[in-house]
Amino acid sequence: MTWIEDPAFASDRPFGPQTLPYGVTGDGVAVRVGDHALPLRPIANSFSERLTDLVSADTLDPLLAAGRPAWSELRARLTELVNDTVAPRGGTLVPLAEVSNRLPFTVADYVDFYCSRHHAENVGRIFRPNDAPLLPNWTHLPVGYHGRAGTVVVSGTDVVRPKGQRKGEHGPVFGPSVRLDIEAEVGFVCGGPVASQVPTSAAAEHVFGVVLVNDWSARDIQAWEYQPLGPFLGKSFATSVGAWITPLEALALARVEPPALPNEVLPYLVEDQPWGLDLSIEVSWNDTVVSEPPFAQMSWTFAQQLAHMTVNGATVRPGDFFASGTVSGPEKWHRGSFLELTWSGKEPVTLKDGSQRSFLEDGDTVVITATAPGEDGSVVGFAEVAGTVLAAD
Amino acid sequence: MTWIEDPAFASDRPFGPQTLPYGVTGDGVAVRVGDHALPLRPIANSFSERLTDLVSADTLDPLLAAGRPAWSELRARLTELVNDTVAPRGGTLVPLAEVSNRLPFTVADYVDFYCSRHHAENVGRIFRPNDAPLLPNWTHLPVGYHGRAGTVVVSGTDVVRPKGQRKGEHGPVFGPSVRLDIEAEVGFVCGGPVASQVPTSAAAEHVFGVVLVNDWSARDIQAWEYQPLGPFLGKSFATSVGAWITPLEALALARVEPPALPNEVLPYLVEDQPWGLDLSIEVSWNDTVVSEPPFAQMSWTFAQQLAHMTVNGATVRPGDFFASGTVSGPEKWHRGSFLELTWSGKEPVTLKDGSQRSFLEDGDTVVITATAPGEDGSVVGFAEVAGTVLAAD
Repeated sequence: MTWIEDPAFASDRPFGPQTLPYGVTGDGVAVRVGDHALPLRPIANSFSERLTDLVSADTLDPLLAAGRPAWSELRARLTELVNDTVAPRGGTLVPLAEVSNRLPFTVADYVDFYCSRHHAENVGRIFRPNDAPLLPNWTHLPVGYHGRAGTVVVSGTDVVRPKGQRKGEHGPVFGPSVRLDIEAEVGFVCGGPVASQVPTSAAAEHVFGVVLVNDWSARDIQAWEYQPLGPFLGKSFATSVGAWITPLEALALARVEPPALPNEVLPYLVEDQPWGLDLSIEVSWNDTVVSEPPFAQMSWTFAQQLAHMTVNGATVRPGDFFASGTVSGPEKWHRGSFLELTWSGKEPVTLKDGSQRSFLEDGDTVVITATAPGEDGSVVGFAEVAGTVLAAD
Repeated sequence: MTWIEDPAFASDRPFGPQTLPYGVTGDGVAVRVGDHALPLRPIANSFSERLTDLVSADTLDPLLAAGRPAWSELRARLTELVNDTVAPRGGTLVPLAEVSNRLPFTVADYVDFYCSRHHAENVGRIFRPNDAPLLPNWTHLPVGYHGRAGTVVVSGTDVVRPKGQRKGEHGPVFGPSVRLDIEAEVGFVCGGPVASQVPTSAAAEHVFGVVLVNDWSARDIQAWEYQPLGPFLGKSFATSVGAWITPLEALALARVEPPALPNEVLPYLVEDQPWGLDLSIEVSWNDTVVSEPPFAQMSWTFAQQLAHMTVNGATVRPGDFFASGTVSGPEKWHRGSFLELTWSGKEPVTLKDGSQRSFLEDGDTVVITATAPGEDGSVVGFAEVAGTVLAAD
């Protein structure tokens, strides 16, 4: 019997001892156990000297910089502590309902990829109906672009409807977005030594953990602005991330082979061990589950993304953050954006209360959750990423 | 007579008392006077209490955060100090040749615009010969995208030729870029309070100063990757910035009306006072001046760029950095990229040594400089941004 008296802290529950994700509360670095936060600063003496400062910090930044050896040692020691029969001296559990989560790390560069073939094909069909849905480069490289790091926000932060230009009948018009959308994604938090030209085989050494992402998107703003240099204001107003980062080490049993591409890829993108991940995602729109995107269907893995991102000599540094792009699968109920799910608004979805939706209305709340297979039949959880839309200023 | 005995510290020279740009050396924050650096930490006692910590810092970050009132007070006091007949106690000049400049601030988000009509039209003709050179959105908004903050480097840093995918006859091939290019740009360093929806009339309150930028670009990588989400690895390997930031306050006399657009712009992009800037830029390729881009020809000003960047609710924060995009004018010798200057390599330029160039070769050095009109007939200088190309790893 563990000292942690919380029925949610069980190996058949998403936040049992197999998960142990990290976050930051008003008390600094904490680990999530079931439906409680365990602040680490008060139990810093339970860790080795090199970990003491890392767990006593106000953010995860020092831990991210410390790299894999520290991450592994910390996780191993935490696993001992949470499975012990007595609490470590100073150890106190705080119910999640009483916790105010902060963005757990300082986002350095944020890159958003586009690695779901189904998503890319759906968007291609909607935005460029007269062309082939997939552009020629897509099967040869993980397409990506830089997003705005300064507007990455933690789950629970309200999202104000953005204003901007959209196409009108007689030139552009300005106003609140009328096609506000989500993108259900999976994000990767980087750490360890600054490096470039990271091979796929070393990518995991630079990834601390995994969070769910909602890359809010104003489709009308995006459609008008995005050529030729890509999305800008249609995306830069807010990107929400889960408050608790699931360590990559918890996902050993979630690894799967990604779906095959129709062509061979260049050697720097070949993986010796596959880094596809079998996350089952759920997207809720005002309490109605509207989509279940399968992350195992992604064509490019995070290891390939990181190898690509650094192959030109660009560095990866602690705090760099990259996301998978919208997760969509082959079926309609797999679609990770409302643009796809409602086919650009033409096929509205009906929520539990009987109301219909094509894009987001003010007051709407979106919650994304996920689980993955863990060791011994357990389930590894990913903290929800939730946000409510507020009316434009 | 001033105590600063340096013939380059004269009002008819670019780095006379009318300029006073800020940089960071091994000794922390410094100001450039002629061909010398004046480190500020040793003379911190010459400033008011609220400035002491700012000028004693290791980087310009605290000064950027302090905002316009502190910037104005510091510049006014520095102007007194450098015009005095006796040196402030502890004041020592270091010849620039002995100074090792560092990147003067921590780059938060980096945005690259695309605000030269001549550049956009030239690139359109080269990359999309069958379409109208200017896309429909271009005259309605300052097109821009996010770049990589982590690979912004200070002038003098060598640039290793990037490797990546480019289009081949039978699918993509991988190797060092064979079309390595420059982009001569002007960059704006942000500071002051975090803000969003910044009107054009308040933009200057959020801009600390101006630097020259070389946005190195691998055209072969870019051409293959950039659809549909914009440039990524073709740009992310290095962006060089000048070592000394010219304060915006030094440019009061450089303000000009930008060229008219063919249509009215939406109200949030209208300027009550024009923020075009009359910088005369020179681009040297191995000691041969190959181009003289006129910044006054830019269609969108930094105030419009900042208003646009934040109109969707995105914040601007200290350390945010945005660049104008390649500066090109109507004439061939105004072109700020070699892609345009050599018309995609078809019209090579001849350097002083008789050699010909279409794109950059290993060992080539590019230096960009600029001046602007200052008060009383003086000339305001912008520190050079220089870089030498090294062979791919």
